Amino acid sequence: MKNNALTTNAFIGCETAYEEAEIVLFGSPFDGTTSFRPGTRFAGQAIRPDSYGLETYSPYLEKDLEDARIFDHGDLEFPFGNTERVLQQIGTYSGQVLADGKKFLMIGGEHLVSLPSIRAAYDTFPNLHVIHIDAHTDLREDYMGEPLSHASVIRRCHDFLGDGRIFQFGIRSGLKSEFDWAKTHTHLEKFTLETLPEVVNSLQDVPVYVTIDLDVLDPGTFPGTGTPEPGGITYRELLEAIGHLQTLENIVAADVVELSPQYDPSGASTAVACKTIREMLLTLAE
Amino acid sequence: MKNNALTTNAFIGCETAYEEAEIVLFGSPFDGTTSFRPGTRFAGQAIRPDSYGLETYSPYLEKDLEDARIFDHGDLEFPFGNTERVLQQIGTYSGQVLADGKKFLMIGGEHLVSLPSIRAAYDTFPNLHVIHIDAHTDLREDYMGEPLSHASVIRRCHDFLGDGRIFQFGIRSGLKSEFDWAKTHTHLEKFTLETLPEVVNSLQDVPVYVTIDLDVLDPGTFPGTGTPEPGGITYRELLEAIGHLQTLENIVAADVVELSPQYDPSGASTAVACKTIREMLLTLAE
Amino acid sequence: MKNNALTTNAFIGCETAYEEAEIVLFGSPFDGTTSFRPGTRFAGQAIRPDSYGLETYSPYLEKDLEDARIFDHGDLEFPFGNTERVLQQIGTYSGQVLADGKKFLMIGGEHLVSLPSIRAAYDTFPNLHVIHIDAHTDLREDYMGEPLSHASVIRRCHDFLGDGRIFQFGIRSGLKSEFDWAKTHTHLEKFTLETLPEVVNSLQDVPVYVTIDLDVLDPGTFPGTGTPEPGGITYRELLEAIGHLQTLENIVAADVVELSPQYDPSGASTAVACKTIREMLLTLAE
Amino acid sequence: MKNNALTTNAFIGCETAYEEAEIVLFGSPFDGTTSFRPGTRFAGQAIRPDSYGLETYSPYLEKDLEDARIFDHGDLEFPFGNTERVLQQIGTYSGQVLADGKKFLMIGGEHLVSLPSIRAAYDTFPNLHVIHIDAHTDLREDYMGEPLSHASVIRRCHDFLGDGRIFQFGIRSGLKSEFDWAKTHTHLEKFTLETLPEVVNSLQDVPVYVTIDLDVLDPGTFPGTGTPEPGGITYRELLEAIGHLQTLENIVAADVVELSPQYDPSGASTAVACKTIREMLLTLAE
Amino acid sequence: MKNNALTTNAFIGCETAYEEAEIVLFGSPFDGTTSFRPGTRFAGQAIRPDSYGLETYSPYLEKDLEDARIFDHGDLEFPFGNTERVLQQIGTYSGQVLADGKKFLMIGGEHLVSLPSIRAAYDTFPNLHVIHIDAHTDLREDYMGEPLSHASVIRRCHDFLGDGRIFQFGIRSGLKSEFDWAKTHTHLEKFTLETLPEVVNSLQDVPVYVTIDLDVLDPGTFPGTGTPEPGGITYRELLEAIGHLQTLENIVAADVVELSPQYDPSGASTAVACKTIREMLLTLAE
Amino acid sequence: MKNNALTTNAFIGCETAYEEAEIVLFGSPFDGTTSFRPGTRFAGQAIRPDSYGLETYSPYLEKDLEDARIFDHGDLEFPFGNTERVLQQIGTYSGQVLADGKKFLMIGGEHLVSLPSIRAAYDTFPNLHVIHIDAHTDLREDYMGEPLSHASVIRRCHDFLGDGRIFQFGIRSGLKSEFDWAKTHTHLEKFTLETLPEVVNSLQDVPVYVTIDLDVLDPGTFPGTGTPEPGGITYRELLEAIGHLQTLENIVAADVVELSPQYDPSGASTAVACKTIREMLLTLAE
Repeated sequence: MKNNALTTNAFIGCETAYEEAEIVLFGSPFDGTTSFRPGTRFAGQAIRPDSYGLETYSPYLEKDLEDARIFDHGDLEFPFGNTERVLQQIGTYSGQVLADGKKFLMIGGEHLVSLPSIRAAYDTFPNLHVIHIDAHTDLREDYMGEPLSHASVIRRCHDFLGDGRIFQFGIRSGLKSEFDWAKTHTHLEKFTLETLPEVVNSLQDVPVYVTIDLDVLDPGTFPGTGTPEPGGITYRELLEAIGHLQTLENIVAADVVELSPQYDPSGASTAVACKTIREMLLTLAE
Repeated sequence: MKNNALTTNAFIGCETAYEEAEIVLFGSPFDGTTSFRPGTRFAGQAIRPDSYGLETYSPYLEKDLEDARIFDHGDLEFPFGNTERVLQQIGTYSGQVLADGKKFLMIGGEHLVSLPSIRAAYDTFPNLHVIHIDAHTDLREDYMGEPLSHASVIRRCHDFLGDGRIFQFGIRSGLKSEFDWAKTHTHLEKFTLETLPEVVNSLQDVPVYVTIDLDVLDPGTFPGTGTPEPGGITYRELLEAIGHLQTLENIVAADVVELSPQYDPSGASTAVACKTIREMLLTLAE
Repeated sequence: MKNNALTTNAFIGCETAYEEAEIVLFGSPFDGTTSFRPGTRFAGQAIRPDSYGLETYSPYLEKDLEDARIFDHGDLEFPFGNTERVLQQIGTYSGQVLADGKKFLMIGGEHLVSLPSIRAAYDTFPNLHVIHIDAHTDLREDYMGEPLSHASVIRRCHDFLGDGRIFQFGIRSGLKSEFDWAKTHTHLEKFTLETLPEVVNSLQDVPVYVTIDLDVLDPGTFPGTGTPEPGGITYRELLEAIGHLQTLENIVAADVVELSPQYDPSGASTAVACKTIREMLLTLAE
Repeated sequence: MKNNALTTNAFIGCETAYEEAEIVLFGSPFDGTTSFRPGTRFAGQAIRPDSYGLETYSPYLEKDLEDARIFDHGDLEFPFGNTERVLQQIGTYSGQVLADGKKFLMIGGEHLVSLPSIRAAYDTFPNLHVIHIDAHTDLREDYMGEPLSHASVIRRCHDFLGDGRIFQFGIRSGLKSEFDWAKTHTHLEKFTLETLPEVVNSLQDVPVYVTIDLDVLDPGTFPGTGTPEPGGITYRELLEAIGHLQTLENIVAADVVELSPQYDPSGASTAVACKTIREMLLTLAE
Repeated sequence: MKNNALTTNAFIGCETAYEEAEIVLFGSPFDGTTSFRPGTRFAGQAIRPDSYGLETYSPYLEKDLEDARIFDHGDLEFPFGNTERVLQQIGTYSGQVLADGKKFLMIGGEHLVSLPSIRAAYDTFPNLHVIHIDAHTDLREDYMGEPLSHASVIRRCHDFLGDGRIFQFGIRSGLKSEFDWAKTHTHLEKFTLETLPEVVNSLQDVPVYVTIDLDVLDPGTFPGTGTPEPGGITYRELLEAIGHLQTLENIVAADVVELSPQYDPSGASTAVACKTIREMLLTLAE
Repeated sequence: MKNNALTTNAFIGCETAYEEAEIVLFGSPFDGTTSFRPGTRFAGQAIRPDSYGLETYSPYLEKDLEDARIFDHGDLEFPFGNTERVLQQIGTYSGQVLADGKKFLMIGGEHLVSLPSIRAAYDTFPNLHVIHIDAHTDLREDYMGEPLSHASVIRRCHDFLGDGRIFQFGIRSGLKSEFDWAKTHTHLEKFTLETLPEVVNSLQDVPVYVTIDLDVLDPGTFPGTGTPEPGGITYRELLEAIGHLQTLENIVAADVVELSPQYDPSGASTAVACKTIREMLLTLAE
């Protein structure tokens, strides 16, 4: 009888202590710059209990979460209405995990949360390259005058990463000027992920950060997001992409962002997020 | 500071004045003959604000709404419970727009609203041909004794268009007698849109009206409709079809019908309607 | 004027009397061992009225429910909280229908309801083979100590059927030990249904029971279920599979299980269940 | 074992055959003139299965449905888009029930369905008086030019009933001109039902029809309706009013209208309608 | 920085360790005999995170959770489909808490979970009296042949408590035979809680268990429950009742049952449960 | 035929031009510091179309919006993620309206939007007094270190208004320290609005701002809000309070805040907001 501890709320199969863990899972429940429909702040809270609808074993990767050593820190706690303090907290936590010699998987939150975590990875691994899977370019210089926005997060990463380091896939929405800008600054594949295998091939010897905005999926598969953009990829295509990512042994960190669970009362979108997190955790695991 | 005008409620990128416009967008919020689940009357009201979740630029057609000249008239205002007066109003407005030398895109409403608008196009362009993308045949002689019904709208169009003018795609539901009737009166492709390119090819020299019943899409992609019919096309297939339509320079008018937004609390179906309207507006634009 | 009888509540096109019927449709509204989200008890209640959103004619199979002789018994009535009595009732009813020389199609309920109906078919046809279409292996020895569970239903069937009689398709979730066990005891195809045509071919001369757990479909297509598992098949793939099943003349019974209508407010999942039931009834019909 | 009959779909405790019945329950699933949010067509379909969440016994009236003789005819079947034919069907059925010496309780539908049933009662009992419990005056001469509308139904009844026959309670919404008109033509109590006991007292010797628009209740209690109007009565106040009505022995017919079940996913509004129907049936019963 | 522990999931203000606690909070997520709409198994999971929408301070009782010593054990873990094992687990845990000299507050689950916890309290305090606040009598001898049911839980308690020990308030639904039976075996107040102060007065010197079925509240206030019963008490009336209960110093345990959070997408019902739990915890606290 | 203007989106009866208006209605769609559930940014967008479910005439105040001169400016447009710029914009707009000699009614948004509008009123009318109707004290010095928060908005107003200027009603949630602080700095009535008439009486000669946080209502009446707090006032009590406010001739501005429409799929909460806005507009009107 369990008298002395509240039922755990960790993601399924992630019950290793921090000290023993090779991978740290944590949430960044922030949606403060969301222009259309907020709610990604609730992603972590929805994901953890629903993860128990999955098995720990992946028949795709033929690996099991129970064979990995993963610590679930839970969601970070943020003040409201102060974007800069939030980003700072994420950066500090991400940096410390990397300094402790561990990898991390961050659960969003809106996409802006990737800025400090990619920055922390870059500070630790200066030769960092980024694989960005998304429906949106996220390359705006600013959004309504605000340089720190979910619509400009990859542009902000380019500020320090520079040309040739960012690889974008599945993009099907943006300003014409963003698509034009990308031609000379990033690798941007419109609509599909067909060039992913060759990109993965070319990145075997460099540290890689993978950021997955789940709205890359078709809204039929993933309606629970702030800005549904029809015409996306299928879940099987995403699984296939993760299969390619698994051949990369140098992924240092990753994130899965933009689940807004309250927009999908069926819970299917939360299940999509849970399964993607499981597959990415197994991809990060040795 | 905008002191003197209420925030516009126009579809994104459709703020040209009527006089300068080449295309007129308007809504026909009628669902009076819907047999199963009403609610398409709310489509226009849901579509306009959610259109701001899209960009004005289409990376598919590589065109931008901001480069077109489009006037959004808003929804027509109808009395309730009087089908004939409603149809008359739609016909009058459609006819006037065409008489002014403009094209139009109508937002449904249930599919019966296409009857007066196709009639108006036929009155202006007697050689009119119709491309009909839908899950349902819509070829009944009557529905429970009522000749004016969403289930008989294409049959009513055949009454004046005659044989060889109607091209149906994606059809996967109907009476056996409707499928039989179609064999000698229309071009009807079951389940898919594979013959669309050759049909488009054959229609290069005649005026064309395009009517898209969004329930042609699989309910997974588009659950927000009155009569979901599983097994439909994907959104990518619809985008590809619109790509073919863009090669037609003689589309005189079009409609996008049967969104029932309240059946999809995620808003993904409304996003599908918005994106389809954007792509069709760009297809109509010079 | 219909003064003397309440509006029928039968599934569309299923109004033959029991005595004249070749096929019996009935529901087993039980969800008592559902581990995650209950609600399949409401499937039958949701399916019957919504079946009128379909036509009786299938353009896929080119057959019509009105040409078959089908009796709809409605849902069985169960006590609550007593799993064994429920299973016994299902077995008794299933056995009686078969004893009367009829086929049946059962509407779940959770997947455990297939245990007594498959047992009844086995008792009548000792050489019974089972085609099992599902996302989950359902091969556990027990679930939290309970041998009678929706997660162990196919394993319980193996207890009496033995090796070589069970053919599983579309499976994408289970314990590693279940996948390992299946290697020597069942035919198990992961993820897809590609081997179905050859399996169907090999079963032309034996009695066959078909059990379809609708969660084999991708949650985008079928969110209304207790345990959504992303990455499933499309509805077109399921239709194609049913096309293959139609070539089997010795299907003695079938079931369609695991719709939880309240998890899909759009009703699209209920429409999926209705259409699958129509297609399976036509497959069972002479 | 029930082999030969589909599970009944009658309202709980209403299983008497028509010939033996003293009271007939039937539904009029029409919402064709609803100006704001349609959906009352689904009321009957929602009410019957959910009625089994109630008991047949009323601890308020201390009577039991099982002691009354009630036939449930189910919902009438209507064509769509033709208001006049619908009203005619209701009138014919209502008239026949009264001609057979029975009372009836009609389930709406929108309030316009009361017009033909009150007319039928008036044709049978020319001295008919009407008790009208509602949030809205329903006294418009027409609505957007249409004389047959849910907003003008009581005015249309006044056309044949004349002054002094209509008693309105709970009214909290209408045009100023409607309130003014009522001063000389009806008894209209604003906001509350306080004058009901004395009105009931004055109607002991005349035939009475009771029409209850459930939107008289506060939307907190009854959100599932097309036009929620805050500030309504509590359910206890409605129960108290029905207690007064029970002292009337000459109620010849009644209706309960304007449930739109899909606007209340909790089902609480449907429960309100069910309980009101039970109490009114018991009030009609000898 | 919190590196070594997952974010707590305890009810707000309940973070004392078991050993130091005077009160233990735990959940019994069981809904296996629910006849109508299941879902109370999710109550605990919904209540804990939403409790942070409250303050720890009660301006009604002028007490603060932070001044009490409360341990939150979380939800018990049950197998599915085996009612007797579930009840046994609840009884064992309840008994141990009492044996350790602590009080407990149990969160349901359906009302049947109160049977083993009341039994455990009775075994510890043989002179136990029960205050039962509910919409339903819960006095059936059995339900469809099953003696262990949420509809018979208080009758089962009477089996060991006997006459004169059970005090029922707010009851507005049941069989006529249940109301009749209650006349000689329990104190039963219909509809309201007016006799509660005098009953509380009479129970000053005996051990008391309080069981609150939240469906005693009007469904307008509390729609999120399996069997909504219109005409209930207001939340202010429940607060007033709890004010009276606070004068009892000998309440040894209590429960708050029948929240089904998924039937109330607004979350207001969960807020009602949270606030009731806070007030009852403060009532139990010294 | 209305060819040249999009269907208006103004609140019903508010179509006077700015120059002629005596009252200005505008929205502040900001929810950036919301700690629990965001969504008040959508209030204005939901309120305007649903206002047409109301009449312009109030039978309570016996006044009609059509007799007032009201301009609806629509919602202000804000950047995201920058609280200070948002507050500045509200302050500027509010100030200009007052400078033009008009009154205003602001639609929230979260309660923090009242800070700049009250400040603007104070700058124009230095002797300003504030009537605050709310469930929450809103008197925190800061919230998680952030001084600008919806939980501290009234405290921030006290910073410039000082003691004796703030009158709080209906308060039922807060820290103990907030209730204690209020004893010497504001007039705070717990739970009810009973002292409102006498307060109104005492404010006949000073300029008054009225801020109504709709969560003062019971969540049964108003579930569509971020932080539902059970035990609130009824809508009739709020109507009665507004009746008292109408006797004040010196209300210079007002606001109605905290509707989160997406938490109430029934739309009843939006109807509550619409009706409150109508009554407050009529109260402000001469």
